[in-house]
Amino acid sequence: MKSAVRRRIKIMQSEIKQNISSPRSANNPAFSRVYLGGEKNLNLRVPFLRVEQSPTKDHGKICDNPAILTYDTSGAWGDKQPDIRKGHPAPRLEWILDRNDTVECSRTARPASKAVPIFENARPCRVAAPGKNVSQLHYARKGIITPEMEFIAIRENLKRALIRANGNHPDLADLLKQHKGNSHGASLQEEISPEFVRDEVARGRAIIPANINHPELEPMIIGRNFHVKINANIGTSAVASSIEEEVEKMVWSIQCGADTVMDLSTGDNIHETREWIIRNSPVPIGTVPIYEALERVGGVAEDLSWEVYRDTLLAQAEQGVDYFTIHAGVLLRYVPLTAKRVTGIVSRGGSILASWCLAHHKENFLYTHFEEICEIMKAYDISFSLGDGLRPGSIADANDDAQFAELRTLGELTHTAWKHDVQVMIEGPGHVPMHLIKENMELQLEHCKEAPFYTLGPLTTDIAPGYDHITSAIGAAMIGWYGCAMLCYVTPKEHLGLPNKKDVRDGVIAYRIAAHAADLAKGHPGAQIRDNALSKARFEFRWKDQFNLSLDPETAQDFHDETLPKEGAKTAHFCSMCGPKFCSMKITEDVRRYAREHGMEETVAVTAGMEEKSKEFKEAGGLYT
Amino acid sequence: MKSAVRRRIKIMQSEIKQNISSPRSANNPAFSRVYLGGEKNLNLRVPFLRVEQSPTKDHGKICDNPAILTYDTSGAWGDKQPDIRKGHPAPRLEWILDRNDTVECSRTARPASKAVPIFENARPCRVAAPGKNVSQLHYARKGIITPEMEFIAIRENLKRALIRANGNHPDLADLLKQHKGNSHGASLQEEISPEFVRDEVARGRAIIPANINHPELEPMIIGRNFHVKINANIGTSAVASSIEEEVEKMVWSIQCGADTVMDLSTGDNIHETREWIIRNSPVPIGTVPIYEALERVGGVAEDLSWEVYRDTLLAQAEQGVDYFTIHAGVLLRYVPLTAKRVTGIVSRGGSILASWCLAHHKENFLYTHFEEICEIMKAYDISFSLGDGLRPGSIADANDDAQFAELRTLGELTHTAWKHDVQVMIEGPGHVPMHLIKENMELQLEHCKEAPFYTLGPLTTDIAPGYDHITSAIGAAMIGWYGCAMLCYVTPKEHLGLPNKKDVRDGVIAYRIAAHAADLAKGHPGAQIRDNALSKARFEFRWKDQFNLSLDPETAQDFHDETLPKEGAKTAHFCSMCGPKFCSMKITEDVRRYAREHGMEETVAVTAGMEEKSKEFKEAGGLYT
Repeated sequence: MKSAVRRRIKIMQSEIKQNISSPRSANNPAFSRVYLGGEKNLNLRVPFLRVEQSPTKDHGKICDNPAILTYDTSGAWGDKQPDIRKGHPAPRLEWILDRNDTVECSRTARPASKAVPIFENARPCRVAAPGKNVSQLHYARKGIITPEMEFIAIRENLKRALIRANGNHPDLADLLKQHKGNSHGASLQEEISPEFVRDEVARGRAIIPANINHPELEPMIIGRNFHVKINANIGTSAVASSIEEEVEKMVWSIQCGADTVMDLSTGDNIHETREWIIRNSPVPIGTVPIYEALERVGGVAEDLSWEVYRDTLLAQAEQGVDYFTIHAGVLLRYVPLTAKRVTGIVSRGGSILASWCLAHHKENFLYTHFEEICEIMKAYDISFSLGDGLRPGSIADANDDAQFAELRTLGELTHTAWKHDVQVMIEGPGHVPMHLIKENMELQLEHCKEAPFYTLGPLTTDIAPGYDHITSAIGAAMIGWYGCAMLCYVTPKEHLGLPNKKDVRDGVIAYRIAAHAADLAKGHPGAQIRDNALSKARFEFRWKDQFNLSLDPETAQDFHDETLPKEGAKTAHFCSMCGPKFCSMKITEDVRRYAREHGMEETVAVTAGMEEKSKEFKEAGGLYT
Repeated sequence: MKSAVRRRIKIMQSEIKQNISSPRSANNPAFSRVYLGGEKNLNLRVPFLRVEQSPTKDHGKICDNPAILTYDTSGAWGDKQPDIRKGHPAPRLEWILDRNDTVECSRTARPASKAVPIFENARPCRVAAPGKNVSQLHYARKGIITPEMEFIAIRENLKRALIRANGNHPDLADLLKQHKGNSHGASLQEEISPEFVRDEVARGRAIIPANINHPELEPMIIGRNFHVKINANIGTSAVASSIEEEVEKMVWSIQCGADTVMDLSTGDNIHETREWIIRNSPVPIGTVPIYEALERVGGVAEDLSWEVYRDTLLAQAEQGVDYFTIHAGVLLRYVPLTAKRVTGIVSRGGSILASWCLAHHKENFLYTHFEEICEIMKAYDISFSLGDGLRPGSIADANDDAQFAELRTLGELTHTAWKHDVQVMIEGPGHVPMHLIKENMELQLEHCKEAPFYTLGPLTTDIAPGYDHITSAIGAAMIGWYGCAMLCYVTPKEHLGLPNKKDVRDGVIAYRIAAHAADLAKGHPGAQIRDNALSKARFEFRWKDQFNLSLDPETAQDFHDETLPKEGAKTAHFCSMCGPKFCSMKITEDVRRYAREHGMEETVAVTAGMEEKSKEFKEAGGLYT
């Protein structure tokens, strides 16, 4: 019987496609994934996307432009087509083993296997050795700089990466020019050292979600003194999707720029779907374990118990989930505060727990067992993402008593988690009109003592289903600027259906925009390099460079080619908006040349002798020779 | 010869399609365009879109929901398929004639007709009688409340429209609940009276763009004490597009919600294209006359002259253009200030004038002839949109000396225009990181004495060509909140190509979102009605109502149907995200019912006797019966 089952599973694994699609076109000669070593630890291989630029042609003179290095979340799938049956390489494995504070263990809890393909190349799982705490927060507080921290220090420093890639190129100074931002009290660093990373983690102001059972991870950090990060939600539901589709969405997410991915699967095969996702993911994976716990009790919220939930946590911990959304702040006494809302409780986790509390007339078991949860978290280094189960689901319900009562409780729980050296971030709304966004950020910093904030949008209006990536990118950019550390994307399908891979791309790009706009507004060091490079390319009609430096090169090029499809147009000094005869950018080039030739760059040009100059100019052939 | 030409033209007019496509599906039984009369002037017919809602079904009880009236820019094309060969009805014609201060005139200037279809049903054009000033500002300052002003007072008052449509429906109070906003010093009125409209116009804080030769117009107002407005740019270029396509884009613009449309055509047939657009447009049409002037001199900027420009203004004035972008602030001495920019001068108008100034070493002829321009403006009631020819074209160039030098000059010109009782608004950037947006608004209010501000975005980052409707919707929402009166849309094709009708729709919807988010944040009276209604519909699984109340009902429904296409799913109490067994909204409904039945709505529920209550609840069947 056992071997029959195994054969059946093997057959099904072979049905998984080896190669899945990608939103990025292969073989763009301008792109390469490069790795910078540590300056002390030369064995580190910190990934960047290197974008070569074509030279500037200025009156026959040819000037090279520097290569731009961008933060790259695509993992090994940036180097090659994913073979999802083998999984992603495991750069962290050696570091984890070197720390010598974990032991191998067999998986203690595994749900009954259904007829789905099992990922066969999984490593044995590990757990902290007895008495050990393996969290990055624990190491940080002991003063230890882990390889993860050094990796992050290099990864976050785009200024330094640019210089390392280009030596003393004369244009670097122009590329590095940047507006002084308004960081709203964040402590942005010109040079991010490994020690700064350690210190931020030790203070609880940043987290490094990195389960010891997720060695495939390329470490990243979430905190307001670092680049603003974004999360993409994927996951099957009871009515739609398959394992392959979900892995494909994960790959699209990271290739478009998602920093973490949450698997919110709710239907069958939750466990196996997640296994395939984690084994192939170079970014942290988050989950909402109450969804799987609910599946385990047949979907009946009142049948949930601490025991079922704990077994679910352990199963996911052993798989390598990096952070758990835990709705421990949905207290029984807060639930009635939502009764008069326009949209009640819209968080799935929040509503499951609210109905459990009411059914049993007991306090939320996640709250009462919170310290036991901390014990699990520190044995695998899983970070808390304390869920906002009472977040507003409409503009009308924004910033109400229920929401802020829960936030205060999340502050208490943060304190408890930190007592255990467990990493914590705090989830936030939701639906909030622009003028009420700042209050969310300020209260979160106050109640949760600067633990990183992680918000869903917020959506700034309710009236645009089909476009909620936009309604929410507005709120996300603003709260990112105010200090939010990670922005959970919203796709165009929000409120309407399950996102497909195109929706995932649209959501991720909208959120990369929001996060980058926030980095610029904060004045994050190096954030403006890419804007400066792209704008210079745009101004010089280096079309390919403009596409390659953009967040979505394929879409930029496709849009350009809709009007001017010929290859020649991509080197032409005009575009379809103005046509070949008249072009504002061409005129400006001429103005600039004229100003330069006449020594007018810095001086006011209205002088005596204007008529004479005019005559000279016309005799010389004017602007249009 | 003459009749041969005429026959040729006739043949070509018959080639214009009678009916063009529409982004809105016909025959949605929930939609009707309704007209409210004035409360004094009963002959006014002020349009709204009436959206019927289905009833709420609550445990067998059926409760009607109020109809929602929304601000409607679609004109007669909201009632029927456009027949663009006949043109739009002319509601203003009677008002203009009644004022008895204009005379008929033959068109004084008309460029040589090329082989393009002529709009044959054009009315004779009119001009102010000798010595008369026909601007709304002039009437306002004389204390006259025009029909245009009363029309606007009714149109802007969505609270009152809701009440007029629904009488004393019991749910109106809930729909009218709204957050107190932060209006940044605007004087938002609970009830907008015709006198308030007059007063705002008289102060120069709002404009009513309404050329006497555009009687097809349904009057609208641009000012920060009214709803934030949006503009859509359309227009042919030298390499792409046709008259029909441009009229179709205008129709798509207004059916999606554009408040004004700018015709930025630059190629051949500028004059005739514009005629077709204006004759079919119920919204104000703006242009940048320097584009046509440049065509008239064969595209050579230095050959421009005041005389060519004046003739162009007159030709457009006689056609009915409602506002002119005039780059009179690009002064010769400011041009060199742009030489060290990353992206120089990116405004087409700005760069044309800058090159003219340099070629002639003379001051901008729009500046030196500004009072003569005012004379033309007041003879037709054309509003100034004082162009920001030196706006920044990249994040790097934001808020620099060139930009703000020009803004101060626009302030001086505002003063001059007001001396002539000519209406003025001021154009603004462009590319600005979030933290520098507010300075733009504050300096504009200061230098231009509260004349309405009209910005292009601003884009909050340069790195997302293909998605600049999003990069700019972020900045647009913010500056709208700070007090910007009108937001010029940016489409996904910005920087890449000419927008097609789908891009127009995407741009308009993104900007409706930005404008509405701004209205909510300012606390504009009645702004939250639609959010409240849609959120209630969403919470009650009234899918069709959710679609119908959204900014783009077709897209919302299409997205929903991708996952759950069956008609039954649109009345189902679940959606594709969570499936039929588990649904957070369903759980919340149960929680609310439970709280109501147990009298727990207002009180804290953690009390003695919890176990007993729990027992009762389980005996009653729990939440899932």
